[in-house]
Amino acid sequence: MQWVKVLGGVVGAAAVLGLGIIVGHFAIPKGADSPAPSASASQDLDMKILETLMEQLDANRIRENLRELSKEPHLATSPRDEALVQLLLQRWQDPESGLDSAGTTEYEVLLSFPNGEQPNRVDVVNSTGAILFSCRHSEENVTGEQGDPNVVPPYAAYAPPGTPQAVNAAKYGVAGVLVYTDPKDINDGKSLPNETFPHSWCLPPSGVERGSYFEYFGDPLTPYLPARPYSFRLNSDNASGFPPIPIQPIGFEDAQVLLCNLGGNLAPADWQGGLGCDYNLGPGFRSNSIFPEDSQVNVSVHNRLELRNSSNVLGIIRGAVEPDRYVLYGNHRDSWVHGAVDPSTGTAVLLELSRVLGTLLKKGTWRPRRSIVFASWGAEEFGLIGSTEFTEEFFSKLQERAVAYINVDISVFANATLRVQGTPPIQSVVFSAAKQISAPGSSGLSIYDNWIRYYNRSSPVYGLVPSLGTLGAGSDYAPFIHFLGISSMDIAYTYDRSKTSARIYPTYHTAFDTFDYVDKFLDPGFSSHQAVARTAGNVLLRLSDSLFLPLNVSDYSETLRSFLQAAENLSVLLEQHNISLGPLVTAVEKFEGAATSFNQRIATLQEGTPNPLQVRMINDQLMLLERTFLSSQAFPEERYYSHVLWAPRTGSVATFPGLSNAYSQAENTGHDRPTAWDEVQRQLSIVVAALEGAAATLRPVADL
Amino acid sequence: MQWVKVLGGVVGAAAVLGLGIIVGHFAIPKGADSPAPSASASQDLDMKILETLMEQLDANRIRENLRELSKEPHLATSPRDEALVQLLLQRWQDPESGLDSAGTTEYEVLLSFPNGEQPNRVDVVNSTGAILFSCRHSEENVTGEQGDPNVVPPYAAYAPPGTPQAVNAAKYGVAGVLVYTDPKDINDGKSLPNETFPHSWCLPPSGVERGSYFEYFGDPLTPYLPARPYSFRLNSDNASGFPPIPIQPIGFEDAQVLLCNLGGNLAPADWQGGLGCDYNLGPGFRSNSIFPEDSQVNVSVHNRLELRNSSNVLGIIRGAVEPDRYVLYGNHRDSWVHGAVDPSTGTAVLLELSRVLGTLLKKGTWRPRRSIVFASWGAEEFGLIGSTEFTEEFFSKLQERAVAYINVDISVFANATLRVQGTPPIQSVVFSAAKQISAPGSSGLSIYDNWIRYYNRSSPVYGLVPSLGTLGAGSDYAPFIHFLGISSMDIAYTYDRSKTSARIYPTYHTAFDTFDYVDKFLDPGFSSHQAVARTAGNVLLRLSDSLFLPLNVSDYSETLRSFLQAAENLSVLLEQHNISLGPLVTAVEKFEGAATSFNQRIATLQEGTPNPLQVRMINDQLMLLERTFLSSQAFPEERYYSHVLWAPRTGSVATFPGLSNAYSQAENTGHDRPTAWDEVQRQLSIVVAALEGAAATLRPVADL
Repeated sequence: MQWVKVLGGVVGAAAVLGLGIIVGHFAIPKGADSPAPSASASQDLDMKILETLMEQLDANRIRENLRELSKEPHLATSPRDEALVQLLLQRWQDPESGLDSAGTTEYEVLLSFPNGEQPNRVDVVNSTGAILFSCRHSEENVTGEQGDPNVVPPYAAYAPPGTPQAVNAAKYGVAGVLVYTDPKDINDGKSLPNETFPHSWCLPPSGVERGSYFEYFGDPLTPYLPARPYSFRLNSDNASGFPPIPIQPIGFEDAQVLLCNLGGNLAPADWQGGLGCDYNLGPGFRSNSIFPEDSQVNVSVHNRLELRNSSNVLGIIRGAVEPDRYVLYGNHRDSWVHGAVDPSTGTAVLLELSRVLGTLLKKGTWRPRRSIVFASWGAEEFGLIGSTEFTEEFFSKLQERAVAYINVDISVFANATLRVQGTPPIQSVVFSAAKQISAPGSSGLSIYDNWIRYYNRSSPVYGLVPSLGTLGAGSDYAPFIHFLGISSMDIAYTYDRSKTSARIYPTYHTAFDTFDYVDKFLDPGFSSHQAVARTAGNVLLRLSDSLFLPLNVSDYSETLRSFLQAAENLSVLLEQHNISLGPLVTAVEKFEGAATSFNQRIATLQEGTPNPLQVRMINDQLMLLERTFLSSQAFPEERYYSHVLWAPRTGSVATFPGLSNAYSQAENTGHDRPTAWDEVQRQLSIVVAALEGAAATLRPVADL
Repeated sequence: MQWVKVLGGVVGAAAVLGLGIIVGHFAIPKGADSPAPSASASQDLDMKILETLMEQLDANRIRENLRELSKEPHLATSPRDEALVQLLLQRWQDPESGLDSAGTTEYEVLLSFPNGEQPNRVDVVNSTGAILFSCRHSEENVTGEQGDPNVVPPYAAYAPPGTPQAVNAAKYGVAGVLVYTDPKDINDGKSLPNETFPHSWCLPPSGVERGSYFEYFGDPLTPYLPARPYSFRLNSDNASGFPPIPIQPIGFEDAQVLLCNLGGNLAPADWQGGLGCDYNLGPGFRSNSIFPEDSQVNVSVHNRLELRNSSNVLGIIRGAVEPDRYVLYGNHRDSWVHGAVDPSTGTAVLLELSRVLGTLLKKGTWRPRRSIVFASWGAEEFGLIGSTEFTEEFFSKLQERAVAYINVDISVFANATLRVQGTPPIQSVVFSAAKQISAPGSSGLSIYDNWIRYYNRSSPVYGLVPSLGTLGAGSDYAPFIHFLGISSMDIAYTYDRSKTSARIYPTYHTAFDTFDYVDKFLDPGFSSHQAVARTAGNVLLRLSDSLFLPLNVSDYSETLRSFLQAAENLSVLLEQHNISLGPLVTAVEKFEGAATSFNQRIATLQEGTPNPLQVRMINDQLMLLERTFLSSQAFPEERYYSHVLWAPRTGSVATFPGLSNAYSQAENTGHDRPTAWDEVQRQLSIVVAALEGAAATLRPVADL
């Protein structure tokens, strides 16, 4: 990732790419069984309830939630994390504003922590081993919160212990990695104490970004199995996905001392940053540096792997008509430090949304058509662990019954505009919600009209529309979409990119991510929080209460078209290897045709008075379309990824990931290796079969 | 398989086991999109319609169907096979007695045929190469049908070409395999021409059993992908599952000449048979034999692999209330020769059943609640190819919507009793049907009461009941249960085991399996055919028309208990390796508890007036339970098998197959290899997770 500046302290600035790959995964901004006898099977979305919900979502209550949630550090499985489990249970079991039921599930998972007795160290030593300089072991106590004894010292989770020596370095190349965040990338260049928090939203010089360096997601020891006591666990030596060498994050204040004294050749222009000096590549320090030339950087990492019990909290509102259809809404609970922004801005919204709905429920004013499941996930910062174990434990139940998953992690990055990532079928319901809610501020625009000013695209079908992002693996939606094929989305308010180039809010994963930071700089007045609560709540209610599910399967056609177009740019080389795109073209056309007439049948039904089973049949087709894109054969070497449209793409061409990756592989290595082109053909077949299968589920059900 | 006697012609009787494994697989006896506005959502099974169906199923029409179907040989993809495709289409499109729609789907699949120009040969030659004796190239023309130019010469499909020489034999051990069927195993000892067909049902001396020797099922070149033109095909050299050496089947008349002259040590007692001589092991002929001692057996196999288009025929009756729920009923169409018994006894029943239902449909008397799909599969004899490609092409649609699959391949093996193989949930519906129909003959018993006299077990829940068999891979149900997790069954009438020990009807897969054979010896009067038609039709109508699906998930508890009991016999060694069965016990108890209260909820609903969505919810739980037992992690090295209860078991202990196999592996090789015991623990975890997941789908849907 370009924003990650790396100092190979011991051996010079190698491993940029390697680290980029290791980091990329999480460093990306995170974005009663029977219907109530009274309930009518034809019950549809009640606009009055929707308006009531919009009105009652209270900015000030969100602010108070945030204050409580971010009062203390709540690292996964820490006492405060467990205390918040109780807080959530208590809220969801409240007689006036609670849900039908709430409970917790515990998983025994492998986490990684620094060693309390032996702090990780980064020192510059001379040839006799005397320490000339030491990086900070903790962040400066600027506002009081940084002095909390429960602040976990900066570390790189899952980075192995080790104290690399120069001799190893010389022998093996890269022996250790230092990571820091450059003022140019995070602070729009600002780096002086009086320019940074608490004087601005910028990251103070001592701020250090923590993170997980585990390559996959889920508990590292129990892939595909819930991390229950009964489950087989790999020996941690046999577990894969951990970084191969020690890693330690430091602040830019310390990075400056090391980097500005480094010798060797000048680093490339796009590696230069905001520390006020030329960045060199090393190895070693320059002759005129503050350190003797033969000085070395010693990195000592003492991280420990530990099995810990992590809890998910689940709260349910039973559906009145279709209790066996679940609309899921979740966010993680654990933070690196106080986690005011990440994840508490999301949890504060979650609690306010469940309070308002719970109150309507307890008053007897409302009960959703479908069941609503609220979730507070544990140990997300270590690798989406709580949510992944949940999808592993309830695999069958969720694949059969889950309508959609709504993720609101960091709800406010900034106050400019809505930002939504999701799969195409959720575009329509998000647009409907965004058009119904007015944007914060004085513009008088709807959230939709404001959104389109910042992020838009020209759709061949709809013209100019806000552009949705795609779902990577940056938050808990990943196991739902990639492993289970459940239509998912992530909703937040975010930046005006013309005003800042910060890759994410500056105090991300540091001890400066505190309540005051949000209250003073991110969202004073909490109107953006309220906007996100309204948008997510509006979407949630539409999904839970609409007679026909507000998912538009036709919106997948645009994705398929663009992937097909990209694939057609490869046709020359493909044809040289006797691989025809004809079947793919046909399959895409079949999908388009099936989706179009499917929507026409829905429209016709909506004009009449469809019976409950006709509606259920259509809704099952809508709900299950996303599942039809999963293939167990597509990505054998990936973990959990099985969606033929959204798996990780290493190939340069923006087409179906399996095809793109196999093509690059063949292009680079395969001209004389027919098997590489066989794999291209195989991947193409898998996509065609999936699209044909998807189209088949949209046709009239009794057609051959 | 004990019944297979093997002559390693060139090198003596090795490879018995190897062949057993290769053969076992198939040598086992085979055994408008909207509800009609009129249709009521609470429509339940109409007993009058059921009685009408029972009455109208006509033995004589089944006989006439059989005469037509078995008139000529109809090997897969032969002109007669294609003619039968047209016959089925015409019947299912008949304006008076047809279905709502019918069509065909073609797959381009890899088959194996003998070479028309170069017949396979088995000769005895002397040291100069002069031929002293030749096995027949075709069966004796006893009744005229055997002379039909379209009779395919005896061969072992997918056995590679080759002409093994003694020198190779000496060098490599087994170089070729001869297979024959011994009179002791197939004819209750009878072997003289005047004791065999047409004088009795026994196999004539020249009869040769054809078969497929492909190890897996489905098209060999397109595993997991439908064999459509667009699909990636393996190069046949890279395809796996073919026998490694030439194989040729011969008649016992020829086998006698070879075997009774063989020298070497006396073969084990249970290898001795009914050819009227001592069976020796070879190598070579004995000194006083009719052949010079240095004579050799030369085997020349010239089989060819060919890509052929094979058709499935599908016919649909649209459901009135739940058209998106499919009850499937199928059988294969292709035979080895005339195939009167296999498969035409099944197809004759299929055509009569679809005629009666089609007539009720066209008269407007009846339309099922759910859709009914009739299927005539192609190329089953080569490895369940048509049905497997169908499940690959419509994977998503079927996993979402298929209620059950009913297979009626050979419908009559003999006239003694009903025989049903299936998964536990189908026991109840089969019993209901069997109790309602009277058995053929003068006993006056119901099919159920007659059945219990021949095959029974003592159930802890029900006391003495007929015993169901389990589903292997002997017919087209295999991909439905093993690959898709669809509750399946196979229905037939079969032997009185006190009257014959024939492993299967004697003319199985020979040119003597003709209409007269069935008409004179297997089922004169066709009353057993009628009994099977009534039983299968009764089950079909109950599955398609019952308001609540007549599947009893509680009946899985007995299986789980017996598997658990068997596992507990392993506990000593398991505990030595710190593997506890506690979680398995808990999981089984959870399943039992969940299933019991689930059935209680159904009973309560049935007392009241449940609304359509309450019924649908329950039915979805019933339909999808079987799916919850599938695990993508359980059997990575198997093809298609993923059901944690019914995969192939190589371990000796009759418990969960993955556990049983891993345990045997560890017991035999693993005492000092901890990884072998890790695999036992992993397999145990997979079963526990599947059972926990299954139980979760049976609990009240809005429970956590």
